[in-house]
Amino acid sequence: MADVFPATAPPLGPPDRQSAMRTAARLAESALAVEGVATGDREFRDWYAGRVRDDVAEVRRIALDRLSGWRAEPGTGNLVHDSGRFFSVEGLAAEDVDGGSPGWEQPVIRQPEIGILGLVAKEFGGVLHFLMQAKNEPGNHNGVQLSPTVQATRSNYSRVHRGASVPYVEFFQQAGRHHVLADSLQSEQGSWFVGKRNRNIVVEVGREVEVEAGESFRWLTLGQIHRLLAEDDVINMDARSVLACLPFGGAGEGAPASTAVLRSCVEETGALHPTGEILSWLAGLRAGSGLAVRRVPLDEVRGWKRTEECVAHEDGRFFRVIGVDVRAAGREVRQWTQPLIEPVAQGVVAFLVAEIGGVVHALVNARTQAGLIDKVELAPTVQCVPSNYPRAPYPPQLRFLDEVLEAPAERVRFDSRLSEEGGRFHHAVNRYLIVDWHGDHRIEDDTFRWVALHQLAGLLRHGHYLNIEARSLVACLHSLAGGTRATGTGEEVPAR
Amino acid sequence: MADVFPATAPPLGPPDRQSAMRTAARLAESALAVEGVATGDREFRDWYAGRVRDDVAEVRRIALDRLSGWRAEPGTGNLVHDSGRFFSVEGLAAEDVDGGSPGWEQPVIRQPEIGILGLVAKEFGGVLHFLMQAKNEPGNHNGVQLSPTVQATRSNYSRVHRGASVPYVEFFQQAGRHHVLADSLQSEQGSWFVGKRNRNIVVEVGREVEVEAGESFRWLTLGQIHRLLAEDDVINMDARSVLACLPFGGAGEGAPASTAVLRSCVEETGALHPTGEILSWLAGLRAGSGLAVRRVPLDEVRGWKRTEECVAHEDGRFFRVIGVDVRAAGREVRQWTQPLIEPVAQGVVAFLVAEIGGVVHALVNARTQAGLIDKVELAPTVQCVPSNYPRAPYPPQLRFLDEVLEAPAERVRFDSRLSEEGGRFHHAVNRYLIVDWHGDHRIEDDTFRWVALHQLAGLLRHGHYLNIEARSLVACLHSLAGGTRATGTGEEVPAR
Repeated sequence: MADVFPATAPPLGPPDRQSAMRTAARLAESALAVEGVATGDREFRDWYAGRVRDDVAEVRRIALDRLSGWRAEPGTGNLVHDSGRFFSVEGLAAEDVDGGSPGWEQPVIRQPEIGILGLVAKEFGGVLHFLMQAKNEPGNHNGVQLSPTVQATRSNYSRVHRGASVPYVEFFQQAGRHHVLADSLQSEQGSWFVGKRNRNIVVEVGREVEVEAGESFRWLTLGQIHRLLAEDDVINMDARSVLACLPFGGAGEGAPASTAVLRSCVEETGALHPTGEILSWLAGLRAGSGLAVRRVPLDEVRGWKRTEECVAHEDGRFFRVIGVDVRAAGREVRQWTQPLIEPVAQGVVAFLVAEIGGVVHALVNARTQAGLIDKVELAPTVQCVPSNYPRAPYPPQLRFLDEVLEAPAERVRFDSRLSEEGGRFHHAVNRYLIVDWHGDHRIEDDTFRWVALHQLAGLLRHGHYLNIEARSLVACLHSLAGGTRATGTGEEVPAR
Repeated sequence: MADVFPATAPPLGPPDRQSAMRTAARLAESALAVEGVATGDREFRDWYAGRVRDDVAEVRRIALDRLSGWRAEPGTGNLVHDSGRFFSVEGLAAEDVDGGSPGWEQPVIRQPEIGILGLVAKEFGGVLHFLMQAKNEPGNHNGVQLSPTVQATRSNYSRVHRGASVPYVEFFQQAGRHHVLADSLQSEQGSWFVGKRNRNIVVEVGREVEVEAGESFRWLTLGQIHRLLAEDDVINMDARSVLACLPFGGAGEGAPASTAVLRSCVEETGALHPTGEILSWLAGLRAGSGLAVRRVPLDEVRGWKRTEECVAHEDGRFFRVIGVDVRAAGREVRQWTQPLIEPVAQGVVAFLVAEIGGVVHALVNARTQAGLIDKVELAPTVQCVPSNYPRAPYPPQLRFLDEVLEAPAERVRFDSRLSEEGGRFHHAVNRYLIVDWHGDHRIEDDTFRWVALHQLAGLLRHGHYLNIEARSLVACLHSLAGGTRATGTGEEVPAR
């Protein structure tokens, strides 16, 4: 048989895989370096207290019709920025074309631009560090939290706002010059955004590249970041999202895998379901979904009422669209007004995890959310605001709520209060939990599957798979890799 | 250090990988079985000639305003079906928010439903066979071509058209009961569709499952299909799309890799760029793209004129939207009318391929197309209708056109005329070529990269990566694996 392309050269080694193994081993080492190297724990605490003291903002609620730079678009009432950029608040109608469920309407944020959530990494003393930023966001109930090195919309870094330039953004715009550890477009809240995504990227610069940590920035090891993640409201949503994308997987048996969690992240063995089966399950749900979504004017969203003050659900459930006036000390633009989404109550976001065949798996829920581009992504076992569903029928994402909230303390591996993005959401706080499941693992149904941690890592190389809440929990799972345990209170946020 | 999840069980073997290797080896064997087992070559020829003779349709062009079951929506002129399902023809406006390029408007097909392109596989005589369907589509210039087992829109298989049920669709709706070889949502023509995708799925049924091949169906080996792919206009677009998704990769060194093409498909070694680098390059282009797309009424599309007959470009370039009346013998519904997109000229779709470090790579173009969900996907080296660009400036996808069309015959590995989907496009034919590049491979720039064949296979496990034209070419590349060479004429289609 003719050989169209003659096979002459010898097989090459698999450098892609060797490089992945080295990276995974170095991440594992950084996760174990809980004391830090470039920035000692004491130094960090002093610096962080200083940022909390100096980077202050006065955030006042104002009526939507008093926003400046924003206007209600004639004919629709949609809230749009005068520049036509940033984002808009409009209406969405969701219906089931198969007629199986009644459909609904709601306000959403439309932000078609793709921003950058970028983390610069560099070795100090042979250990990988990450450049974290102390950043005040208007929706944060506690002001400053730790964000990635860069957290910027396209309008931000392309200077639509005419403010200062975004520091360090060049490392991501010219990522090809450096060692890229992770780089994918990932979705954000599919219940509040329509089609929103950000580029989640981690770039390691060589030791020869000078990167000065500005006043709002410090170099931390993964071990330090993981300890802070266990505290309430320190590591912000965008940081969690990009941390989740770090390629822990593929380190092989040589990795310093001192814990079962870390081993399940780095060794690609022993999944209950082959990855192809998970992909097929998801493709089937996406193709089978009858959910159809269309835009409706904000003034005509059924079930919601608009006043001069805000847009709110008629029964007081879900969230409100409010306005805020911000006067900040530490931002590019020092005074502005903007709309924010304010949920009416605290949510619960949780993974049940179990060792199956010696490998740690998380129970994921294939969840349909109207604002997601692919409609269905892998979500946490539980992701809900319980008070939104006072009566049956409960949606699938409440199915394991009791198992999570009533688990005995020794099975609760992680329990912290963490905030959603403070640039779009006002005092949006969820209780994040990781709970060990000791029962029979045969509790899967049409929308639940046990997925091994290394499979989640593999899926996170790509977009469209794990929703933002699941990514937050993956970062929390990684934080258990060093053997630490959650220290947050997990209590309710004080009423405002 | 405390071990939160005690690591007790021994590491398991990697069954996921072993299974992938077995599958890849069986696909390679089927590709080498060019004579067939279940259906001999003579038997196939007789059957196919019979289908061409018996499955005839009369397709007449009619004016758009004479379509029945379709109407021009008041206020927009958009062409919509009376049921609100199937698809619509509307306008799209594309602009560059950075102001770097002028933008344009055009008609597009909007078809938000996800259909099924499904192939049933089964072993006969120890060799994998695939159930191919002889199907007449109204836009095919030659009537019958070979399609996958199932090629159905959601409206088709959920019976909106009140016709006969879709045979074999249950194998894909209940894919989890069988061995799923491939399953992903893949895009279609980003220049003609907005947001269109289909579930591309291959399901292998066990030998114990009875699957009767209906009158329009025959079991063929990959080797047989590959030979037919080298002929003009036999294997239709949907079949090529789903064939491209077959998991050739990962067979390892034990596979029967008699050719360099097959070896480069199955052995995951020696890529010029690590896969992470390719993913990062693509994420950067997607995030950096300033392309913004919005809907406009079909009656108001700038640069296009609408008559009672059709919608056409003012300069006679690109395509027309026409109407057809179909009277068919072999379809679920026997008479209907519908709009179709009719390109004004034949296109060229080509990969330059090269052995780099002994591994076959294809030169892919990261191409921005307004109708793609992620805006940028990996496209062929050349993908254009040359007559649309009579003068400079030529778009990037024309950059290697001369190298392709003027290559000496011994470097042309594949050269066939293949049709695009006959259910939406009228006489849409492209000349598909694979041309060996013998020059220096350092010809990459911002939008071109050499990608190894096994990397393309890896990306095809997921959606959003390879556009439909590139997938067609991947199927053509696979067809070289058995050592056959293209036999199509590659000549121009006769003028109608």
